[in-house]
Amino acid sequence: MKFDLDGILNSKRLAISRALSFVENADNLDMELTDALFQHLGQAYRIGVTGPPGAGKSSLVDRIIEFWRKLDKRVAVISVDPTSPFTGGAILGDRVRMGRHYADKDVFIRSMATRGSHGGLAMRAQDAADIFDAAGYDVIIYETVGVGQVELDVAQAADSTLVVLVPESGDDIQAMKAGLMEIADLFIINKADRQGSNQALAQIQSMLEMRHPEHGIWAPRVAKTSALQAEGISELMDALQAHQHFLETQGIIRKNFKDRMSVKIRAQIEEQVMRKFWTAEKLEKLESTLAFHDSKNLSPGRIVQILLKS
Amino acid sequence: MKFDLDGILNSKRLAISRALSFVENADNLDMELTDALFQHLGQAYRIGVTGPPGAGKSSLVDRIIEFWRKLDKRVAVISVDPTSPFTGGAILGDRVRMGRHYADKDVFIRSMATRGSHGGLAMRAQDAADIFDAAGYDVIIYETVGVGQVELDVAQAADSTLVVLVPESGDDIQAMKAGLMEIADLFIINKADRQGSNQALAQIQSMLEMRHPEHGIWAPRVAKTSALQAEGISELMDALQAHQHFLETQGIIRKNFKDRMSVKIRAQIEEQVMRKFWTAEKLEKLESTLAFHDSKNLSPGRIVQILLKS
Repeated sequence: MKFDLDGILNSKRLAISRALSFVENADNLDMELTDALFQHLGQAYRIGVTGPPGAGKSSLVDRIIEFWRKLDKRVAVISVDPTSPFTGGAILGDRVRMGRHYADKDVFIRSMATRGSHGGLAMRAQDAADIFDAAGYDVIIYETVGVGQVELDVAQAADSTLVVLVPESGDDIQAMKAGLMEIADLFIINKADRQGSNQALAQIQSMLEMRHPEHGIWAPRVAKTSALQAEGISELMDALQAHQHFLETQGIIRKNFKDRMSVKIRAQIEEQVMRKFWTAEKLEKLESTLAFHDSKNLSPGRIVQILLKS
Repeated sequence: MKFDLDGILNSKRLAISRALSFVENADNLDMELTDALFQHLGQAYRIGVTGPPGAGKSSLVDRIIEFWRKLDKRVAVISVDPTSPFTGGAILGDRVRMGRHYADKDVFIRSMATRGSHGGLAMRAQDAADIFDAAGYDVIIYETVGVGQVELDVAQAADSTLVVLVPESGDDIQAMKAGLMEIADLFIINKADRQGSNQALAQIQSMLEMRHPEHGIWAPRVAKTSALQAEGISELMDALQAHQHFLETQGIIRKNFKDRMSVKIRAQIEEQVMRKFWTAEKLEKLESTLAFHDSKNLSPGRIVQILLKS
């Protein structure tokens, strides 16, 4: 058995941990776990927290955990790290910063390597969240570094996305405008005790005002926090809960759930179709035509045709 | 005709610009351009420049352009931007920072949106570089923001990868250690006139010393620069040219070229196979089984089986 379903459903740490390792290390997408979990899903609220390095994401996540723990909610954190495509090593720094929650049995913090394949990451992060969901965690937080494609993936796997910036992020805001605007449900200016926080706030607000909110569309909000001083956290949580409420009343959480399932099913089908296509014979043919390609007689498009026909 | 091959080969700006737009906006991978260009490729040296926002990448790229222009080399810059998966809008900020080269007819600076699909990005960036290569540009620089999956993609599309940091990047260096170590051929501590540059230098050097260089494997180097003051640029270029020399003597540039072609051929084949697979009928079947899935009688794995058999 690759995973212990009863153990997961009973929220046994060892069973969860092993299932997460299974997901992280799996070479292929696997429907076995998905099939086992899918009847137990749909209860958890999934949040993405992203932003540039040094914005204080981990400290902020620490405060968010604290907030939900006071409401007796169980919280899981998945730190999605940019890692080597070769070694797949993950990062431990964030664990240290959220260390005070490690002893809490209702908090589970886990780093996850992004590994090589792309589709793979979104899928793996989602599988990891599904494990926590089935194990009865109420809130699942994805923490990622930067605002790149990985973050866009994770944003699509989350119900609410928080983009954390610092007062000095002016340049970033300009530079990342397009990407940020689309993924952020909530902007946070952290380290707001530093100079320039009002300016950064105004900058984001003017960005947001350029959009014309429509009915049924969420208008992103901005909050100022100082995670280390525990300031602005309740305002942040108010805004986040407003978004959660919005999602629920609009039926979006359910829709997200179905969309993710559809993406997973398609990915699984495509993987199986391609696995069947790439026989040892075809792979060898690709190698040999590429070698022949040195002579420059065969165009790449011609090699494609040859392999599709064989 | 989607592109003007003669115009590209004769390095006409309009023809290049149109071909780049074609690549950027193409819905599908296309072998037509690849086939047209492939006999004219392999001359250009491809460099990736990455690092966190605010590290001064654009100013540094400006200096690198200047260096090569003095050697009468033609230089192209592809700024790969994190953008919206929805609107696909690109960023213009970098163009401004490298503005003084805009009037130079032997310098071509172009922003490129990352768009939605992943494999797409690496492929598009590569196609763009192929256009410049065929047009006779000697050096092609990919500039990307951050160190995420996008950067790993671009690193694989480049012959040499420069990772630009600032003296304050201590935390980043720790946090991004695994990813950085694998992609960087050359680390640059820019803004080295600031406090802490020697410390950052030592930190990277100690990281690098933990690796045991083998014969035939490049040992990454570190350089300190101040791009704005034009300091350290010749040392940087010495290190970069040493890497270029290493690649040439080891036959790696040729190998990179073949590897990229192989990846492109595989991607093209997989796209065609899947396009054939997803008939309107199958897509409809996916939709209807997913709707039926609401009743929770059909597991996701079962839906996969149904679609594979149909």
